[in-house]
Amino acid sequence: MNIQEITSFSNPKVKWVSSLKDKKFRDQEGKFFIEGFREISKAIFGNQKNTNCFRIQIDCLFISPDCFLGNQETQLIKSANCPVYQLPKKIFEKISYRDRPDGLIAVAKTPNPVYDWNLIKDLSFNPILIIEGVEKPGNLGTILRTAEGAGVKLVLVTDPKIDLFNPNVVRASTGTLFTLPIFLSPLDELTKNLKKFSYQIFAVTPEGRTLYTSANLCEKSAFLFGSEQYGLSAEAKKTSHDTLFLPMFGEADSLNLAMSCGIVLYESLRQNKKGII
Amino acid sequence: MNIQEITSFSNPKVKWVSSLKDKKFRDQEGKFFIEGFREISKAIFGNQKNTNCFRIQIDCLFISPDCFLGNQETQLIKSANCPVYQLPKKIFEKISYRDRPDGLIAVAKTPNPVYDWNLIKDLSFNPILIIEGVEKPGNLGTILRTAEGAGVKLVLVTDPKIDLFNPNVVRASTGTLFTLPIFLSPLDELTKNLKKFSYQIFAVTPEGRTLYTSANLCEKSAFLFGSEQYGLSAEAKKTSHDTLFLPMFGEADSLNLAMSCGIVLYESLRQNKKGII
Repeated sequence: MNIQEITSFSNPKVKWVSSLKDKKFRDQEGKFFIEGFREISKAIFGNQKNTNCFRIQIDCLFISPDCFLGNQETQLIKSANCPVYQLPKKIFEKISYRDRPDGLIAVAKTPNPVYDWNLIKDLSFNPILIIEGVEKPGNLGTILRTAEGAGVKLVLVTDPKIDLFNPNVVRASTGTLFTLPIFLSPLDELTKNLKKFSYQIFAVTPEGRTLYTSANLCEKSAFLFGSEQYGLSAEAKKTSHDTLFLPMFGEADSLNLAMSCGIVLYESLRQNKKGII
Repeated sequence: MNIQEITSFSNPKVKWVSSLKDKKFRDQEGKFFIEGFREISKAIFGNQKNTNCFRIQIDCLFISPDCFLGNQETQLIKSANCPVYQLPKKIFEKISYRDRPDGLIAVAKTPNPVYDWNLIKDLSFNPILIIEGVEKPGNLGTILRTAEGAGVKLVLVTDPKIDLFNPNVVRASTGTLFTLPIFLSPLDELTKNLKKFSYQIFAVTPEGRTLYTSANLCEKSAFLFGSEQYGLSAEAKKTSHDTLFLPMFGEADSLNLAMSCGIVLYESLRQNKKGII
């Protein structure tokens, strides 16, 4: 392995990797930041297990062996097959996003996240999850993690207010950003194509017409969820086949976006008898 | 209203309220910290709507009118009926727990959170939620918020690793700590009493025997969830009537504790046909 030691805070590589916390700089460089053993493992191996996932090309690794928690780090570093910069713990902590860093940060090329409907000849995953206008990286990460748990095979994001490759998406997703296919697609394009492939589109909203457990989710379904603050756009509600609501006691804002997604996705699992795996 | 202006960072009241971020100091003073218009409103009025909730006695308020977001703050301050300390924005931001404080922090007497089973002659809420060994204040808050949404009327917490009155519980609960009855009870005591009142106790765990949607949740049920890191104790699993699991695709850790609670509670709602409210 080609390991280069860095000992100074003012090393340009340290400054460069720190700057990737800023979206503008990420866009300019076309790179993003993956922290943690689990997350980097998934970034390297996710696309090998499921070729619909992002193909992540790791440019370089920043490591701090004093922070390592396990004994497979060396193997992972070899798998990354890229230049490695070794830092003292103090400097590593400065570039880390975590309270207790585990000594591994990768910088990777930002993949193109736009879904290319022209390549899609058929689509039969049930259900598909669509998130419109998401505002908080942590929420999107939690949604991905939960969607993977619920067996979802495709997540489409439309008009996000955040960058899919925000370090907090990576973190909250526990790396499922790299093991679950997730893509950007404009609303009109995704609804047109999902309808072409015979999906029933359900907009989930507090003002929905149909109780979510009363809808038939055994046909091919796509669930459309809106932003934390503003909910779904009028266009999203209008283009859907039906609107669903979750019963809610107490205060009106008792469920957060990720929780609502999880509850609806698990109801879909239940109806599709995918309980026993 | 008795409003006293404070203009200096070194004012003892400012130091005192800042120190309440520390659990030891909270315990020593027997006080805790409630931030935000919504949260303080619920603390004041929660027990009036449901006398099973904590009765919160507010000792004093710290306000910063420059941060107010609405026009009902003055009314709320009057309702609190306590000494009020007015601070400049800069000092208020120092004591706040929030990125964008809304100018209201209350200090209240810590209520006794121990459930007194001797006072309970009958119990018929369905379901009851039990959380064992919870480690993260934010998770407990989210669980409360979700439980309220799902119509739960009683949450019991056993052997928590955190303080129920941690400011992050208040925050993540969005004030449902004050509108949903929540109490501490030792595991042996709560299971003995719940059995006495004919509850079936379901431990929810990845190694559960029964698919959660296959269990009959229409009888009086109590769901027992374990800690984020260690799951349920052996004692908790042993004392339960049955153990339930949620189906999980992808990585084993795909669902967090609050999400699992939400999914199980909404399945209980579904089975009990409490959909339409």
